[in-house]
Formats: sequence, structure tokens, C-alpha cells
Amino acid sequence: MARLRVHAFTITLDGFGAGVDQRLDAPFGDGVEGLHDWMEPSFSRRRRGAELDHGDSRGTGVDDAAFRAGEENVGATIMGRNMFGPVRGAWPDESWRGWWGEDPPYHHDVFVLTHHARPSLPMDGGTTFHFLEATPEEVLARATEAAGGKDVRLGGGVATVRAFLAEGLVDELDLVVAPILAGAGERLFEGLRDLPAGYRVDALTPGESGVVHARVVRR
Amino acid sequence: MARLRVHAFTITLDGFGAGVDQRLDAPFGDGVEGLHDWMEPSFSRRRRGAELDHGDSRGTGVDDAAFRAGEENVGATIMGRNMFGPVRGAWPDESWRGWWGEDPPYHHDVFVLTHHARPSLPMDGGTTFHFLEATPEEVLARATEAAGGKDVRLGGGVATVRAFLAEGLVDELDLVVAPILAGAGERLFEGLRDLPAGYRVDALTPGESGVVHARVVRR
Repeated sequence: MARLRVHAFTITLDGFGAGVDQRLDAPFGDGVEGLHDWMEPSFSRRRRGAELDHGDSRGTGVDDAAFRAGEENVGATIMGRNMFGPVRGAWPDESWRGWWGEDPPYHHDVFVLTHHARPSLPMDGGTTFHFLEATPEEVLARATEAAGGKDVRLGGGVATVRAFLAEGLVDELDLVVAPILAGAGERLFEGLRDLPAGYRVDALTPGESGVVHARVVRR
Repeated sequence: MARLRVHAFTITLDGFGAGVDQRLDAPFGDGVEGLHDWMEPSFSRRRRGAELDHGDSRGTGVDDAAFRAGEENVGATIMGRNMFGPVRGAWPDESWRGWWGEDPPYHHDVFVLTHHARPSLPMDGGTTFHFLEATPEEVLARATEAAGGKDVRLGGGVATVRAFLAEGLVDELDLVVAPILAGAGERLFEGLRDLPAGYRVDALTPGESGVVHARVVRR
């Protein structure tokens, strides 16, 4: 049975997954600078591995394991429109093709939730972006089919993860708490009153970079 | 210079310092069962030490150190009325004398913020409860004077800590994040938009019991 998994989703100590005023030059908004610094060694190791062409990009630590876990056995990705790009409202044209360049690091079907339809967008390397106006349940059904037996990864942003949590559709939520205060922004755990009925915290585990990994699983 | 310190203040992973419906038989409300379990070894060690009359009640771990830090160099305590007891509104009489029995574990002046005046209440062991309708700044001035050169500890509840944080009066906030989801209740980091201007997270440190200790200090 395919599972819906969230990985490496990072919040501040005061609970924010994004700051205020998300935009092109600040995709996560203001106030959350450094939120994803814990991933940098993993990215850097990967770049080095690619340069040396030996493919050896695995670290040994908790942070790197959490980073890599998000890529294991994933056959499709779901994301909200804010994670796809900074454009809000109707698409002015089709020039925005995601944050990731012509060869996005997905290499499978990516389903983007949006109220504004747009033709599917095939990219290099096997990634195709599909744009859907659908309920979480509907898009999960589409993504599960596309995943062909593998799991589905739910990216972000905050509101998207919250919506799937509220519907009880997430099977595993691997959170990261960063030693940062944002003060304001988008809160992950907001209006999720029924969450404890379906989920529990499996463990809090320190990473090497000063963050803490929190695994939230079904009861 | 006397400092205002918060210690061992425990919140759930989703950010709640108390659940819903705080009352006599559930001082922290529903949904936060186990929130303070991490303190139990410290309490137990202390009881054992007292029984054996050897005074040796010090543990060696991070959890116990955090527990004990809250008692070092403290000359006065401030708390909100909800931490003093479950009575809301006007006092029906003066029979409620706190949660702690006739010899509360403070042994100094304790200032209880309340809109409902009441005569000061001297207890055994040197604790006296004073009831004040005052701003955070005013009560801090009173407590600082009473502390006679030592620091002032700010207890709880959630709303009281939040009020002092909002005024920038807290010098050190030692938080504990417990591996629990509450879903609803009183959130510590709510409406504290300006907090990051004055405070930063010094460190996240794992305890032995599954919690994480978070030290928030002035910038």
C-alpha cells in the first residue's frame, strides 16, 4: 500500500514553516533565514559526489539520513502552488517553470495544487508538473496511481501539508525543528485540533547541525 | 543585576503549554498528559534523598540539571493566577491556599498576578503568597526588591510567561519540548511577532527522557 510521506519539513522553535512576505528573492519569506541550513552539508556532499563522478554522496549522520530518506521509494510528489513558485493568482503566462531549472530533482510526476489550470509541463530528467484544482483526497488518488506502487511524497508549503494533515491523509511526517525564532508567518500546527486522535510523536532526535528531528506517525 | 528567568517550562511539539479545560483534577487541562513526565526522575530522586536523609538528590543528566537550574539563586517567584490554583473570577473565600500544601517548595515571596485582591498568605517554610493587580513591569519591580539581590523566577501559566515575553522582561527562557501533540490549548508563541528582535535560540539539547531542552536568551 502506497504511503503519503512528508520529509525534511522544517519549522522554527516557535512553530513557523515559512515567514512573512514569501516572494521570488525570499521563497520562504522573511524571518526564517537559516531555516534549511541543516541540509547544506547534504547538498554540498551531493554536488561534490557529482563533480567527482563517483556517486558517493552519502553522509553518516542523522541530518543527512533525514535528507536522503525523503528520496527513497518515492514515485510521485504533491506540492502546493506556493512551493512551485512565487506567482500568485492567475498565471500571467507560462514562463514560470518552477524554482529548480530545466532538470528538477524529482524525476517523476509532480502534482501542483492550484486554482488556476495550466497545461502539464514536461521537464528534463523525467519530471512532469501537473496542475490540478482538486481536493487533497483527489490529488492523492492521482499521485498514487502515477507512483506505480511506490510512495507519494508531500512537499509543501505549510498550508498544503496542513490541509493533508487535517484530512488524516499523511502517513508519516518527518519534521525538523530549527533553533530559530520567526515571530510570525505560516504556522504548521494551527487548527489541527483532532491531530492527536490520529497521530503521535514517535521520537525527537538531535541532528548534528543543532536542529532536532521529530517523527510524527499514525497511532 | 537581578535577572528574570523561566525554567522547565514545557510545551508540546505543536506548541501548547497547557491543554483545554484546566481544572482542579487536571491543572494543565486535557490533551497534555505526560507533559511533565521528564521531571519525574528528579522528583523521585529528591523524595528518596529526603527519606534517606542524606540530601543526595542530584542527578547527572541534562533533564535533572534543567530541573535543578530553576532553583538556583532564586529569591522570589512570579506566577499567574492560573498557576496558583483552579479558582477563576472572584475568590469565593480564602480556603484555596495553592496546589502545594502547607509548605510550598518556594521558601520565599511569591507574587501572584490576579484581578482579584486578597490578603497576603504566609505559609510554612518561608513562602508567602502576595496577590497583585499590576502590570508585568510593576510586579517585576516588587519581586526584584523582595529577591534581595538574587534572581526572580517566572513560573507560569502560559499567558503569564507570554505577557512578560511580550514586554521583553524575560532574561532567560529555558523551554522543554515534549514529544506530545495536544491539538489545542494555550500556545506559548502566539502574538509574539517582535520576539526575534530581542531574543534568539541559544541551543536545542536532548534530554534523557525523550524531551528536548531549548534555551532562549537575549540577543
